[in-house]
Amino acid sequence: MNGAEILVETMLASGVNVCFANPGTSEMHFVAALDTHPDMHCILCLFEGGVTGAADGYARMSGNVAGTLLHLAPGFANGWANMHNARKGQSGMVNVVGDHAAHHLKHDAPLQADLDGVARSVSHSVIRADDPNQIGSIGAEAIRAARTGKIATIILPTDTAWSEGDAQPVTAAAPKPRHLPQDIRIKAAAEALKQPGAALLVGGSGLYGENAETAGRIAARSGARLLASFFSPRIEMGHGAVRFGQMPYFADVCAKFLEGTTRIVCLGEVPPVNFFAYPGQPSTPEPPGCAIDRLCYPDWDIPGTLDALARHLGVDGSETVPRIEGRLPELADGPLTADGIGRALALATPEGAIMVNEAVSAGAAIWPHVDLAARHDRIKNTGGSIGHCLPAALGCAVACPDRPVFAVTGDGSAMYQVQCLWTAARERLNITVVVIANRGYQILHHELQAQGAPAPGRNARAMFDIEDPLLDWVALAQGHGVPGRRVGTEAELAEALAEAAATEGPFLIEATV
Amino acid sequence: MNGAEILVETMLASGVNVCFANPGTSEMHFVAALDTHPDMHCILCLFEGGVTGAADGYARMSGNVAGTLLHLAPGFANGWANMHNARKGQSGMVNVVGDHAAHHLKHDAPLQADLDGVARSVSHSVIRADDPNQIGSIGAEAIRAARTGKIATIILPTDTAWSEGDAQPVTAAAPKPRHLPQDIRIKAAAEALKQPGAALLVGGSGLYGENAETAGRIAARSGARLLASFFSPRIEMGHGAVRFGQMPYFADVCAKFLEGTTRIVCLGEVPPVNFFAYPGQPSTPEPPGCAIDRLCYPDWDIPGTLDALARHLGVDGSETVPRIEGRLPELADGPLTADGIGRALALATPEGAIMVNEAVSAGAAIWPHVDLAARHDRIKNTGGSIGHCLPAALGCAVACPDRPVFAVTGDGSAMYQVQCLWTAARERLNITVVVIANRGYQILHHELQAQGAPAPGRNARAMFDIEDPLLDWVALAQGHGVPGRRVGTEAELAEALAEAAATEGPFLIEATV
Repeated sequence: MNGAEILVETMLASGVNVCFANPGTSEMHFVAALDTHPDMHCILCLFEGGVTGAADGYARMSGNVAGTLLHLAPGFANGWANMHNARKGQSGMVNVVGDHAAHHLKHDAPLQADLDGVARSVSHSVIRADDPNQIGSIGAEAIRAARTGKIATIILPTDTAWSEGDAQPVTAAAPKPRHLPQDIRIKAAAEALKQPGAALLVGGSGLYGENAETAGRIAARSGARLLASFFSPRIEMGHGAVRFGQMPYFADVCAKFLEGTTRIVCLGEVPPVNFFAYPGQPSTPEPPGCAIDRLCYPDWDIPGTLDALARHLGVDGSETVPRIEGRLPELADGPLTADGIGRALALATPEGAIMVNEAVSAGAAIWPHVDLAARHDRIKNTGGSIGHCLPAALGCAVACPDRPVFAVTGDGSAMYQVQCLWTAARERLNITVVVIANRGYQILHHELQAQGAPAPGRNARAMFDIEDPLLDWVALAQGHGVPGRRVGTEAELAEALAEAAATEGPFLIEATV
Repeated sequence: MNGAEILVETMLASGVNVCFANPGTSEMHFVAALDTHPDMHCILCLFEGGVTGAADGYARMSGNVAGTLLHLAPGFANGWANMHNARKGQSGMVNVVGDHAAHHLKHDAPLQADLDGVARSVSHSVIRADDPNQIGSIGAEAIRAARTGKIATIILPTDTAWSEGDAQPVTAAAPKPRHLPQDIRIKAAAEALKQPGAALLVGGSGLYGENAETAGRIAARSGARLLASFFSPRIEMGHGAVRFGQMPYFADVCAKFLEGTTRIVCLGEVPPVNFFAYPGQPSTPEPPGCAIDRLCYPDWDIPGTLDALARHLGVDGSETVPRIEGRLPELADGPLTADGIGRALALATPEGAIMVNEAVSAGAAIWPHVDLAARHDRIKNTGGSIGHCLPAALGCAVACPDRPVFAVTGDGSAMYQVQCLWTAARERLNITVVVIANRGYQILHHELQAQGAPAPGRNARAMFDIEDPLLDWVALAQGHGVPGRRVGTEAELAEALAEAAATEGPFLIEATV
């Protein structure tokens, strides 16, 4: 077998059987190896940001990791932003990126660049595979690391890919056990949670399934407030889900939200931090003097820490877990608003849906409605780099082909990786894309205003507004092979959502507000 | 003035008055400063690859440099690939990229990442501006460097942008004089060019205008063959232009093209190198034993070297310069082919057009026809990272508003930065986009075959073909606010080209082959 074949068989032997891809010439031998292994599901994205964002969404919903196939340095760089989002959300992936043959590097060919440098700037690990006999163990170790949330990048030079090796494919070992905080620290945290003004800030796998239930019982037993970050990678929502108070986006609103908090125990989540700094304002939203306990880092053992905390608090299952409750909204008349999008979405959310959220400025009005819908998973942009929603939705849909996926996105964000629409059509993925067409980067209008700037002038408007010309999202969808519809009222949106649900494969709704 | 204002005024004082932009919150003070300076032309691209590719095209055609405005780490990374192309083509640009305030960095906010690392991996210089009193001189130095073809990146943390400084804006000094080879080396090269089998490989500014004429006279006087790389950043073409033999893309074809060459003098160009390595084949295309003389590096003094070489050879203007000559083709009947696209384009090329070329696999058939058209400039993808054509066309059109721009691109390449269509419409740029809809990455089919692989199977086709669903380019254009038309014969293409010429602003033609 050549190096490429050894790596493909290592991936398959280790249970990695999805590969989001955009290859080039330097990956031809890897492509040839994939071609002789049809049990690997290769999914083409027409830009690499789709490749890496899809791998992120796949990791969040599958509990497994995907491979990515990227074309040497610029191809890797094109996928950087969504690797960043994945990294912040603890989504692992195994990147296979080609490079020139070793003997070719000294010639500085046009596509030669600082691949190692750009790869290191976002990956947890970068290994250059110089020998086909090492590629099996390198691949297996990368898969093992990716399964603990790491961005593991393998640089596969073409000569390693094409050279014959004697080594066999390697099956990845089980991931290293995750670190569990010392019991004495967990015990102290349990005591702290019983104090007035205490809060438990939960992240990662603590926000869905049985772990979320445990967190709810801990909160009920201790009296602590249950919090989640604005940017959780995956959180269960909807009527009956455990109620986590989600910290608001804007620094001043979040500071108000946390008033009275005396201590925050972070479990699977980093301490609260404002998205950006503002002149004369603190960087973090908690009240002065609030104690921050980094009990369990995002890549530590979240279920184990939750269970130990529950034990220390004497949780016995009799607790009344705080749950999301409320009545579903009713549709209103008149032109569509962000609130109205929320209402229509809430009513159309089926049990088990996956809602991928990149409604940047409209989100504050939309999501409180959808929170009350049927139980669903919510996926968010953990790293703040826009252009996450459509790629992540691809990955979620590949991971969970039987669950309906909704991609709810601003127009500015959706344009970033608009090419993903084509992959959704190609793979017949069950994704309903709701584009909130507010004609620009509305969040930036807000931010400029927040700085006390005067009304935006020509240059600010030139950089914030997407209204001359208007984007025609139905045409954009059609161009990518996706059916679509434009709506301007809640009733029309409700109809379009029903049409999307009845349509095989993707459907795009342009919701003009 | 605050740091942002000092930097904006430094740019304007130094003659940098175009800024391709996609800002975010960390750039709000810079946006506010731009907003009070309407003499800066701010141009929004809906993805950062458009921003940096446009700056590249602008540099190639304007003889000046543009600024770019990018949103901290992921925004910078999104522009990486076209910075790479610019770097390989010696196009300078001044990147202004925001970052968190210094005091905010320790909190590892969601958008915190290794900005310095990713910036260094593609920039010639990266300076973090920590002090508003230094930003003027930092900006001026960056502009100066960019004017010698460097990618100069300024990291502007928000606190530097918002803090008041006492310093004044700085006007950039004239670029450092470029290095001229020692006279003894030029003299030796002049002698070498007179030897049998000698070739002069010209690049950069040696390929157009008076420099190209000088190169032509040198070739005529010495008897040397005149060569250009496949990837020249800008070359004058069309009937009557100086005839440079352009080295073919494929290694085996190029080796044949260079048969009999005994020495190559490189003037403003790097030595010949194959795009990729192949098993058992050499990395470079010249015959064994062929001497390579790196007389003048791409960032050295190309006009000065040409003039000195001409002096040593006794060039007096009486030489018969080799020129492109030939009769314009005639349109043929039948379904459209790549050849037919070339014929129709050749007939429709007006004097002074700018042809931006990213016809990856169809180019070999198209360009020989267009070579015979009216005199025009040809812009190529110097770094090989696809997604260069549409962004570069934006920059060319901004630099030369009175010259018609043609973006001739494969469908796979065009999808990479398809969002640029919107900017073309917004800015009413005179760009005719010709998308060669061959439904996939045809170049990869060729490369896979070249490796002796069997007929492509399911996975290879899944990664090479863009035909299920078909992209509807007319709808894609409409979605971005650009009129368009699909053509299937040469006559239809000719009509569509006439319609495009008669249309204000951009026009897209889907040429199905």
